[in-house]
Amino acid sequence: MGQVAWKGLFLSFFDYKTEKYVIAKNKKVGILFRVVQLSILAYLIGWVFVVKKGYQETDTSIQSSIITKLKGVAFTNTSELGERLWDVVDYVIPPQGENVFFVVTNLIVTPNQRQTMCPESFGIPDAACLKNSDCPEGEPVVAGHGVKTGRCLKTGAVNATGTCEIFAWCPIEKRKKPKIPLLGKAENFTVYIKNSIRFPKFDFSKTNILETETESYLKSCRYSNDDHYCPIFHLGKIVSWAGSEFQRMAIEGGVIGIQVEWDCNLDKPASECHPNYSFTRLDNKFTEKSISSGYNFRFAKYYRDAQGNDYRTLIKAYGIRFDIMVNGKAGKFNIIPTIINIGSGLALMGVGAFFCDLVLLYLIKKSNFYRDKKFEEVRSASKMSLNIKVNGQPKSKSHNDLDQVRLQPLEA
Amino acid sequence: MGQVAWKGLFLSFFDYKTEKYVIAKNKKVGILFRVVQLSILAYLIGWVFVVKKGYQETDTSIQSSIITKLKGVAFTNTSELGERLWDVVDYVIPPQGENVFFVVTNLIVTPNQRQTMCPESFGIPDAACLKNSDCPEGEPVVAGHGVKTGRCLKTGAVNATGTCEIFAWCPIEKRKKPKIPLLGKAENFTVYIKNSIRFPKFDFSKTNILETETESYLKSCRYSNDDHYCPIFHLGKIVSWAGSEFQRMAIEGGVIGIQVEWDCNLDKPASECHPNYSFTRLDNKFTEKSISSGYNFRFAKYYRDAQGNDYRTLIKAYGIRFDIMVNGKAGKFNIIPTIINIGSGLALMGVGAFFCDLVLLYLIKKSNFYRDKKFEEVRSASKMSLNIKVNGQPKSKSHNDLDQVRLQPLEA
Amino acid sequence: MGQVAWKGLFLSFFDYKTEKYVIAKNKKVGILFRVVQLSILAYLIGWVFVVKKGYQETDTSIQSSIITKLKGVAFTNTSELGERLWDVVDYVIPPQGENVFFVVTNLIVTPNQRQTMCPESFGIPDAACLKNSDCPEGEPVVAGHGVKTGRCLKTGAVNATGTCEIFAWCPIEKRKKPKIPLLGKAENFTVYIKNSIRFPKFDFSKTNILETETESYLKSCRYSNDDHYCPIFHLGKIVSWAGSEFQRMAIEGGVIGIQVEWDCNLDKPASECHPNYSFTRLDNKFTEKSISSGYNFRFAKYYRDAQGNDYRTLIKAYGIRFDIMVNGKAGKFNIIPTIINIGSGLALMGVGAFFCDLVLLYLIKKSNFYRDKKFEEVRSASKMSLNIKVNGQPKSKSHNDLDQVRLQPLEA
Repeated sequence: MGQVAWKGLFLSFFDYKTEKYVIAKNKKVGILFRVVQLSILAYLIGWVFVVKKGYQETDTSIQSSIITKLKGVAFTNTSELGERLWDVVDYVIPPQGENVFFVVTNLIVTPNQRQTMCPESFGIPDAACLKNSDCPEGEPVVAGHGVKTGRCLKTGAVNATGTCEIFAWCPIEKRKKPKIPLLGKAENFTVYIKNSIRFPKFDFSKTNILETETESYLKSCRYSNDDHYCPIFHLGKIVSWAGSEFQRMAIEGGVIGIQVEWDCNLDKPASECHPNYSFTRLDNKFTEKSISSGYNFRFAKYYRDAQGNDYRTLIKAYGIRFDIMVNGKAGKFNIIPTIINIGSGLALMGVGAFFCDLVLLYLIKKSNFYRDKKFEEVRSASKMSLNIKVNGQPKSKSHNDLDQVRLQPLEA
Repeated sequence: MGQVAWKGLFLSFFDYKTEKYVIAKNKKVGILFRVVQLSILAYLIGWVFVVKKGYQETDTSIQSSIITKLKGVAFTNTSELGERLWDVVDYVIPPQGENVFFVVTNLIVTPNQRQTMCPESFGIPDAACLKNSDCPEGEPVVAGHGVKTGRCLKTGAVNATGTCEIFAWCPIEKRKKPKIPLLGKAENFTVYIKNSIRFPKFDFSKTNILETETESYLKSCRYSNDDHYCPIFHLGKIVSWAGSEFQRMAIEGGVIGIQVEWDCNLDKPASECHPNYSFTRLDNKFTEKSISSGYNFRFAKYYRDAQGNDYRTLIKAYGIRFDIMVNGKAGKFNIIPTIINIGSGLALMGVGAFFCDLVLLYLIKKSNFYRDKKFEEVRSASKMSLNIKVNGQPKSKSHNDLDQVRLQPLEA
Repeated sequence: MGQVAWKGLFLSFFDYKTEKYVIAKNKKVGILFRVVQLSILAYLIGWVFVVKKGYQETDTSIQSSIITKLKGVAFTNTSELGERLWDVVDYVIPPQGENVFFVVTNLIVTPNQRQTMCPESFGIPDAACLKNSDCPEGEPVVAGHGVKTGRCLKTGAVNATGTCEIFAWCPIEKRKKPKIPLLGKAENFTVYIKNSIRFPKFDFSKTNILETETESYLKSCRYSNDDHYCPIFHLGKIVSWAGSEFQRMAIEGGVIGIQVEWDCNLDKPASECHPNYSFTRLDNKFTEKSISSGYNFRFAKYYRDAQGNDYRTLIKAYGIRFDIMVNGKAGKFNIIPTIINIGSGLALMGVGAFFCDLVLLYLIKKSNFYRDKKFEEVRSASKMSLNIKVNGQPKSKSHNDLDQVRLQPLEA
């Protein structure tokens, strides 16, 4: 028997086997099924292909290079610094012009600091003292500026609290919050952003500057929603686009994110692949009050006097840090994803049929009738052999014999 | 009736229901179907599994750390600077040796700038003047270097155009484009790149330096396509691999991208996971002429004289910025994606059958015959009973004959 | 006939066609099939939905901004530098407080370097010489510090090897490996890390600092596994969490990676989206011995004396670089991925049925009987006509009868 089976299997290898369908003349379920099919088709075409471009192979590993250059000068005249002109080299840190740059908008300068002894600044709990023994020598001041020398410096009354003397960069920086920004004029500075990108998979390169642009245009233009191919940005505008107010931000500083988004459909001409700029404030602007607001850091300029002693000018710089982040994706037609999407989409059809079957077989009035039709019951050979004796010559054995056979008992 | 239905449903819960197939002894469609099946299988095995390694779980969130160190000295002798030796500390900015470093190849030095008054440089439209009133005091020069003092400085004839005097860092930097690179010798400098990566999901770590390498080897070797495990790169070679010419690039500067690609198949031994270097020029090399070509920035060294006045040396540095970008992915066998890929692959078979059905049922000669076979029509019980009364003679033989037989008892 | 076919096709468009199933009363295969179905369902629900949250649309393009601030002072007293206090400005490079910062833990200082002539340091092969001709003038020393002047400097015996004189920044830095870290106290420094993130797709923002936290809390707290919302980290702890020992690492330096992981389920309240910190050592710690271990770089402070001559203090800084890397993903319920996952999951059912069929049709005892049932053979008109002659009796009514009936006209 097995051998016959294998022979049949081999012979029938090139027969085409197709599922047998039962046609249920039930318009309700029929229409339901068509609706399901339609909606799946709509989803497949509308969403997967039109919206999600499922027929495209995409590359999101964008290679990007940023070059930034600021322009603008500001003149200040303060009691501390006197008349001073600030140019790019003075207010941009670091100078390299990479994708992150910092513009100084406010300063607290502590000139001529030297390594010597001076009283720790007031208001630091650990530095408060009544007698020298409160200032153990060599112990660093917690959250302070130096190490204690062992002496407690007092002003006025003997039993008043003083502060420990410390060895540090003296004098200590004064603790005062700035009220108005020193370099408020920075609002009018401009930054030139050059972004060259490349999608390695498709070997497609582009910059955010049109080849057609003339030098004079690039000198005069300013980025705006109308003119979104001009790479020169007005700092004040950037901040306002990010939803903040420059003059207020300038006092305490902050961080602005400049996103450059490239979404390129390479099935269209390259000229239709545009950069897209968006601006957000990255340091949490909601906690203006909290200590975690703003952005500042300290740095120093180191000098050496004629005697070869080092001294420095300590600068606490408040300002706005701009982080330029580039991301993007490119898509191009490719047969593989197309096949996959069609396949999985049509696979969903099966799910539709599955649910319609449930309706047909269990939810409608004549469901159990259809159930009989859909499911053809068969019994094992043994019972068959019996049948054979009962009726009919071998050759006429067809599937339907046993249907009849099976049904006899029912009739009896 | 419903109750019977439910009883049957329960009993038959552990019956195995399998689709009934109609064997169409049509070799054409049969072969077509086998071809479709084969191509799907080929796609599944060949593409999904062999090429795309669909049986692997992948990790693309690579953790990377870069350490770079340059080596090389260059001696220059210019009228401005006199005899000067340049070592790493002088020409590498910033010094930290991170994944982005800049090598100075050309300089415009403006020594001893002080905050005072001097004429704005010529050629700046906003600074051109005929009389003092053309230079309103305190107004910054657009795209200039300082703020106007209110005086118009003239040379020669009275009605000739002069330039406004400005308060700025004086003297102003001379506007001249360099012709030959000052540090052309930088071509022979070398950079040591150490890249340690880690794939957190698989906790797999590796560096681009073989443990077996001796110190002497690392001192002498140079990276090349033959020797791609030597982490020491010749700057000139890097630039040429990126398709540019060092000496020409050195004049105006530029940006070179060094991609390090890790593609690790962790089903193989770790030793087979190699770094892969590629070099591209990131600043748009096609616009050599345009203002947007090259790369340079200004920085200053600040000094203080005996009188405590600040002065600075302004340096406009042209050079090559190297951006090292690391990306990679690791794959390891995992049962889940294997199942998913097999499943979706076989789902495609359904699509194949779908198309072959279309051929069988609508495109071939005897299609409507097969259609009858494939689709078994059934009518609802009511209509049936009618039939039975009406007829018994051969001509009315329809599929439903046997339905009638089975259905009689139900009516009885 | 084609016209009839199309008519039928149109009429039957709203008939519901459902596969005809054969019920195999074989409990073995039946149970097998149920088990397969159950496991697929379990996989679909358990893995795809519960574990992988397949019902969510995810956003992995996280926008992040890092602000870091170090605190702490250290006092050193060495023969070279004398009494010296180190504060943040001295030991943090670069000062901006971005996501990568470097803490100096060890120093080799070479003060008062000037551009002049001095002997190249010993041990550099290329600088060893016996006579002046071994030091060709103007040739840079390979892996050295300057260019040869043409003179060979010797100490003692005439035929002893000397070193070439070079023009360089003199004196040359002494080559000595530090034994104990100068700034070992850096272990007790603390770093304040502020990380604001944003998921653009869902416009969801959060920081690693709770709004509820008071300034005093943020001054006093320290991050620990118990208190993982305190943004202030103890450097020594970070290093130990990364599996290294600070004092040992401080000697040669190294790189520590701080990963901040945001895994936000936006179907839950925002307060349940926490940052997750992990610490790893990024420079290969296994090769402590090899030259590729540790982390250091050189930088210089430039001065100018009264005569206007430049000189510098060269500093080789060993230390620990901290790289903060932020990554994360946010998920929110969305109908599209839900459909897709259900679809592909159910598609797997087909695969299950496919395998059970194989069992039923080829592996069990009565398989060829079931094969007859499953596959209904149909013959094309020609063969049919033959049958008819052979047999005709009513009881043998089979589907094929009506084929005969319909086919008679063909024969007529």
